[in-house]
Amino acid sequence: MTYDARLEILKKICAEAGKLALRYFENQGDLVIDHKGHQDFVSQADREVEAFTRRLLENAFPDDAIVGEEDAPKAGTTGFTWVIDPIDGTANFINGIPAWTVVVAGVSQGKTQIGVIHDPCHDETFAAMSGGGATLNGKRLLLDDQRGLSDGTVGVGYSGRVDNKGIVQLVKALIDEGSMFYRNASGAISLAYVAAGRLLGYSEEHMNAWDCLAGQLIVAEAGGVVEVQDADTMILEGGRVVVGTPAVFERLLEISEKAFAPSA
Amino acid sequence: MTYDARLEILKKICAEAGKLALRYFENQGDLVIDHKGHQDFVSQADREVEAFTRRLLENAFPDDAIVGEEDAPKAGTTGFTWVIDPIDGTANFINGIPAWTVVVAGVSQGKTQIGVIHDPCHDETFAAMSGGGATLNGKRLLLDDQRGLSDGTVGVGYSGRVDNKGIVQLVKALIDEGSMFYRNASGAISLAYVAAGRLLGYSEEHMNAWDCLAGQLIVAEAGGVVEVQDADTMILEGGRVVVGTPAVFERLLEISEKAFAPSA
Repeated sequence: MTYDARLEILKKICAEAGKLALRYFENQGDLVIDHKGHQDFVSQADREVEAFTRRLLENAFPDDAIVGEEDAPKAGTTGFTWVIDPIDGTANFINGIPAWTVVVAGVSQGKTQIGVIHDPCHDETFAAMSGGGATLNGKRLLLDDQRGLSDGTVGVGYSGRVDNKGIVQLVKALIDEGSMFYRNASGAISLAYVAAGRLLGYSEEHMNAWDCLAGQLIVAEAGGVVEVQDADTMILEGGRVVVGTPAVFERLLEISEKAFAPSA
Repeated sequence: MTYDARLEILKKICAEAGKLALRYFENQGDLVIDHKGHQDFVSQADREVEAFTRRLLENAFPDDAIVGEEDAPKAGTTGFTWVIDPIDGTANFINGIPAWTVVVAGVSQGKTQIGVIHDPCHDETFAAMSGGGATLNGKRLLLDDQRGLSDGTVGVGYSGRVDNKGIVQLVKALIDEGSMFYRNASGAISLAYVAAGRLLGYSEEHMNAWDCLAGQLIVAEAGGVVEVQDADTMILEGGRVVVGTPAVFERLLEISEKAFAPSA
């Protein structure tokens, strides 16, 4: 199946998954919430939305592999892997903050080929295909922003998986640069906002593949710059994520490298 | 007129102002954007929504004073002052990020008596009357959250009005504490989220009155704790804002005082 055809089906699957997640979001009282480590919540919704999304993907693409945040990976025979984050921004979701998304990326030959970030609360679907451009609700996204770091805001992310020195240095460096930081606790939505020209860039010391692959592709296809990584390695280990408009990327990468250096 | 009656009228005025602002938000292309200093945008929408809100307030309460972010203050004869922020979160508004609100507080006898924070993108109206409780869309807000700082997220704010040392120290202290920070670039919405139990607290070194008075009242009336300030002084000079659930407030104030101390 062409990537194009896969993308069209994927958008529909994400919209369906988003509807299910939104029902949970709007009926918070019924959620059963576990506590798995610091700031890392898993809810019934997370698991059920992942199971639902897997089912839809398996029906549409029975021979592909599937990797998700919640369940064990499923092997495939086509060399094409779906990477699912049923709810990116789980803490927001559970706390009733409308900033969370359903995220799915399609990876093949060590590269993200298609990606969708669907925001059910605002009915926004960010999508991209490698070499085929990026869209928001079907409308082409094209970054054309000459502003430097000091004229705008950069999204930042942080998780307890890494030492806290990096994020503190990053916030300080951005403010020293005359820029501003933004942390809304959903990496995927922040990446989508870079693609849409709402943030100048995004930087996080360590992200898991399911949080970033789709967003990185969408930024790149919208005309932004993305630090190059091998998608297969990202799936196994995760890694650093730095993206930005062409006007800010180099400086943001420089700042990020310094902030995240082992000893600074 | 009773505060109760004033609050009911105010809610309607904020809803009308929100509709006007939302029309601007959804038609971004038509906006004329000025640049007044770093990170401080004023748009046609800001000015027009303030003018519109003033007009509605003047019609309903012709003898009250009005203070707004954009226009010169209007004196009154009743001792009652309306404090308007037509669009709190202007940078979000202009960048197309759906996190901004219409905020109005009513001050009398050096104290905020009523306050409304209206979020048109999500159709949420947070409101409170001194001694009369806080509501979200008419439903009573009552904070009952035993979590400590290490089990949740604290909103932080920063503006170029102050040195950057404070915010960097605050972010570091929160992460050292095992907590998490959140900055969505709308102080009022973050305060409203504390009242609704979505964030554990909020801390900012310097806020202007129009950004914080309504939110502080809503937090207090929802059962949260607010660092006490004189509303008249806040109108003239602005000041530090620290609020939190009863379980976190004292520690958050301690952390904030240390972070914002003249030399640390």
